[in-house]
Amino acid sequence: MKLALWQGAGVPGDLAATVAAAARTAEDAAGAGADLLVFPEGFLTGYHIPDLAVGDLSGVEDALAEVGQAARAAGVALVMGTHLDRPEGLRNAAVAFGPDGSELGRYHKRALFGGWEKATFRAGAAPCRFEVNGTRVGVLICYDVEFPELVRAEAQAGVDVLVVPTALMAPHARVARQVVPVRALENQIFVGYCNRAGTEPGLTFVGLSTIAGPRGETLAQAGPGEETDMILAELDLAQIARERAEASYLADLAALRAP
Amino acid sequence: MKLALWQGAGVPGDLAATVAAAARTAEDAAGAGADLLVFPEGFLTGYHIPDLAVGDLSGVEDALAEVGQAARAAGVALVMGTHLDRPEGLRNAAVAFGPDGSELGRYHKRALFGGWEKATFRAGAAPCRFEVNGTRVGVLICYDVEFPELVRAEAQAGVDVLVVPTALMAPHARVARQVVPVRALENQIFVGYCNRAGTEPGLTFVGLSTIAGPRGETLAQAGPGEETDMILAELDLAQIARERAEASYLADLAALRAP
Repeated sequence: MKLALWQGAGVPGDLAATVAAAARTAEDAAGAGADLLVFPEGFLTGYHIPDLAVGDLSGVEDALAEVGQAARAAGVALVMGTHLDRPEGLRNAAVAFGPDGSELGRYHKRALFGGWEKATFRAGAAPCRFEVNGTRVGVLICYDVEFPELVRAEAQAGVDVLVVPTALMAPHARVARQVVPVRALENQIFVGYCNRAGTEPGLTFVGLSTIAGPRGETLAQAGPGEETDMILAELDLAQIARERAEASYLADLAALRAP
Repeated sequence: MKLALWQGAGVPGDLAATVAAAARTAEDAAGAGADLLVFPEGFLTGYHIPDLAVGDLSGVEDALAEVGQAARAAGVALVMGTHLDRPEGLRNAAVAFGPDGSELGRYHKRALFGGWEKATFRAGAAPCRFEVNGTRVGVLICYDVEFPELVRAEAQAGVDVLVVPTALMAPHARVARQVVPVRALENQIFVGYCNRAGTEPGLTFVGLSTIAGPRGETLAQAGPGEETDMILAELDLAQIARERAEASYLADLAALRAP
């Protein structure tokens, strides 16, 4: 499987322009051979919208339908970060589409970070997993991945590739540099952590989008700060079984729990 | 609290010489102001003893009593890695002594690594926690620390300083370089990971003993490979509360589990 991460921002407040940018990026990713393309947290709507309220996200469902059409046009699976206005409350979400444009699942961020997110969004309670070209993929968002428990549950459920739209801001670059590779290592899976670049009101994002492999190795990493970039890596999925044949954290953990 | 890690090996098969070396090291650590001194996994007995069997560890309990006397003589708390011959089976253990020479606890390694350990030792089933000068300390051994679940349980039990005697061999240096700092970060605690240096039959230890802080920062690190070294760091225990006041992984995890 070839995984692509798009490190960048959309056009704040302009859904049509943001969808058009996503469609161009999908074409680029498909041209580079990607099977799955990930956008950052809140790409479609913007991430940090200080006074975001119910009713402010009209048009997002229509825009998501167009994102699905862009996935189909490019022939690439796609995970799009977006805020959602749901009957039960606002959600910090990621919506996955197959290369045929069908919606594969919606994930609602469970670990809300800081005062604004906690005051604005309703926390999710369930995982989101699906297959892309036969590969089992899971989704977390940003702060979720800092909890080893949430990543472990993905690996235990058979996820081989975990994708994580994020909006990691200064001074927290250590999450991209340190935590993400260790999440891959301690579960012997692949992790794609797709961050924003640039700024939003009061926030400077740190870039450093990362694709990490089952030994904790960094397979690809985007630059920090202002850079907009696509990074890609061919994931050797058979590596997971090879690593686990040598020493399996999942099997040894199971033995630990049932002595 | 000032934490010291002794990266080195004892004198294989010579308990008296190994105890004498430990006593000298305890005096050195006390002279440098250490409150707590940690030795690597299997320091007292040697780590990799291919044909180790019940009955081979006579003298170890007497040697441990002398280690306690050395702790008292130096006035420093001490955690000693040693194999033990217990009625229920062989244990890969760490024994803790207070600065008054009293035994504070014994830890039996829970996550046994690889074929030789699994065939030789009986796995432990319980944690080991104690106080040193009012600071709550926990103990894990080597492979244990690679499981985030075991470290999380220490932090949830109020451990501020986790010490980890280890025998990390090539090609696994990524555990010292990557995993240990992330265990400290994701729990906002201090971790002291004390490795061996040099070789034993069939194994080359990688050194890199590390003291990591609550932001995942490396406070002190010993050299790789053949070097024998003592590393020390003054642990600013109030940093833990400062970090958690900003954003607490333990509190946010608790909220996640009870939505």
